[in-house]
Amino acid sequence: MKKVTCTAPVNIAVIKYWGKRNEELILPINSSLSVTLHQDQLKTTTTVAANRDFPEDRIWLNGKEDNINHPRLQSCLREIRRLARKRRSSGDDNISKILNYKVHICSVNNFPTAAGLASSAAGYACLVYSLARLYGVEGELSEIARQGSGSACRSMYGGFVQWIMGEREDGKDSLAQQVEPENHWPELRILILVASAEKKHVGSTAGMQTSVKTSPLLKHRAESVVPGRMEEMIEAIKKKDFEAFGQLTMKDSNQFHATCLDTYPPIFYLNQVSQRIIGLVHRYNAYYGTTKIAYSFDAGPNAVIFTLDPTVNEFVEIVKRSFPPESNGDP
Amino acid sequence: MKKVTCTAPVNIAVIKYWGKRNEELILPINSSLSVTLHQDQLKTTTTVAANRDFPEDRIWLNGKEDNINHPRLQSCLREIRRLARKRRSSGDDNISKILNYKVHICSVNNFPTAAGLASSAAGYACLVYSLARLYGVEGELSEIARQGSGSACRSMYGGFVQWIMGEREDGKDSLAQQVEPENHWPELRILILVASAEKKHVGSTAGMQTSVKTSPLLKHRAESVVPGRMEEMIEAIKKKDFEAFGQLTMKDSNQFHATCLDTYPPIFYLNQVSQRIIGLVHRYNAYYGTTKIAYSFDAGPNAVIFTLDPTVNEFVEIVKRSFPPESNGDP
Repeated sequence: MKKVTCTAPVNIAVIKYWGKRNEELILPINSSLSVTLHQDQLKTTTTVAANRDFPEDRIWLNGKEDNINHPRLQSCLREIRRLARKRRSSGDDNISKILNYKVHICSVNNFPTAAGLASSAAGYACLVYSLARLYGVEGELSEIARQGSGSACRSMYGGFVQWIMGEREDGKDSLAQQVEPENHWPELRILILVASAEKKHVGSTAGMQTSVKTSPLLKHRAESVVPGRMEEMIEAIKKKDFEAFGQLTMKDSNQFHATCLDTYPPIFYLNQVSQRIIGLVHRYNAYYGTTKIAYSFDAGPNAVIFTLDPTVNEFVEIVKRSFPPESNGDP
Repeated sequence: MKKVTCTAPVNIAVIKYWGKRNEELILPINSSLSVTLHQDQLKTTTTVAANRDFPEDRIWLNGKEDNINHPRLQSCLREIRRLARKRRSSGDDNISKILNYKVHICSVNNFPTAAGLASSAAGYACLVYSLARLYGVEGELSEIARQGSGSACRSMYGGFVQWIMGEREDGKDSLAQQVEPENHWPELRILILVASAEKKHVGSTAGMQTSVKTSPLLKHRAESVVPGRMEEMIEAIKKKDFEAFGQLTMKDSNQFHATCLDTYPPIFYLNQVSQRIIGLVHRYNAYYGTTKIAYSFDAGPNAVIFTLDPTVNEFVEIVKRSFPPESNGDP
């Protein structure tokens, strides 16, 4: 029996990924860029164990057994085992043995699953990394994580990470790459405002499929807007220019939700609470005449707030005053 | 003293107008198309009176005096008087006399003003038409109504009306044109679901200015999406093809609101009630496997529902059941 436990972080996209050009390999229609969160609060913890007495591969998510035959899970298992076979030193009998065993996988999120908080990103990143450790595989793994959940490839690195869309049909150049490391912008702070911990009505996979099929604005965004924004965002991050970083983050979040609305039938991830948070942030910034706070929303109503350390306390107070306990959550 | 009273209808755009290329002349960035409502329910009633004893031009809106010096109001007064001077038969002394008098204008809407129900369209259409009658002016007036409120030009005709954006810098070719008359599609019904009668937070004029300045998706929509949709919509109307008409109406409404969301800061006109109505319509259509109901939202949360006569009663019942009295209106 060999057992490995790893943790993986959540990442929050500031240039959003929405739409695949290849469903099976999970190749995106545009590049994206995210900030990987510190693991002190949100993380996935995964334990993988290989044992010759296990009759079959099995998986438990948050304590409940799930379907091991999920195609994406199978892709990750298959790809990591293939890599392990390829890379193992010919003499490593232990790995050879383990590769013939079945595995049990236990994965736990310490935050709500599927509520637009990138749970699948952390989950698949953690799975791929844990399996890699189990089988002694090192090196580039983001291409495999990507095949579990697109955004998972970005959770393979800390700091500021871009997922380069690539051009190849086999996806070998569709990889995550660190733009700046964890310690690059120490004043940057991220707050999560949970507007609703419910599961989302329209999952990301189905949602982006419908968007790709039906939204003329998404196509334009992917082809003509995102490439310029990727450059601008990388520059803002390198310069630690919060004004540029924050504005672009908000604009890109809004544009992503705009393409959801342009989808037919339309998809709404923002609710009335999200709209109020957006209004609050713009009023706050207008009051100071500068971008001190930025928001970003993934495929759910929960706000991710970006700010710099000195602003945190004041903004949290304002949020508490704007959303007193009795009116917290969904109206 | 000469006095004229006219009424004018509201129109509901099914291909939306959002954004001007010339603010003063009110020239749009794309053509648009609307359905003019029957005047039995929503209308503006305007009385204009000219009297040699009036010391100045004055205007009352819904019983309250308003500012006669509003630039757009002045544009309409100036242009219609200019046209009257140009067109009057040389011997018509009565018109010459009246043209030297000041006017009093009283305008009343029988529906909430500025709640996204095209009140300014009906208002300016009515003003221009009443003044034209006062001064004995006939012929093409939509170019003048357009200078009061863009969409007002479409309220100068009944039935299905397109506002052709035109190309000229002086706006002489930016005119409304009837696509089909009032009696073309007698089964078509329009219902208005008032989600909120509050005044909108962001007026159309300011909203579209910000959108033109900041939304990359709006530019793409105007240049590359709308031209094709205008053709499709005209064809659907001519064929009385409700499936095509309804789908395109919904898609275009959604796309307009998507460009509002892509505006920076973003503009939200749809609230939670609007989102619920949209969901209800799609579920209803999915149940029947065909588009029996379509929605459209202007710059406000109120839904305009398009359907055919046989569907009205059932859908109204479903709306009543989904929005029982205690939960009507804003949540």
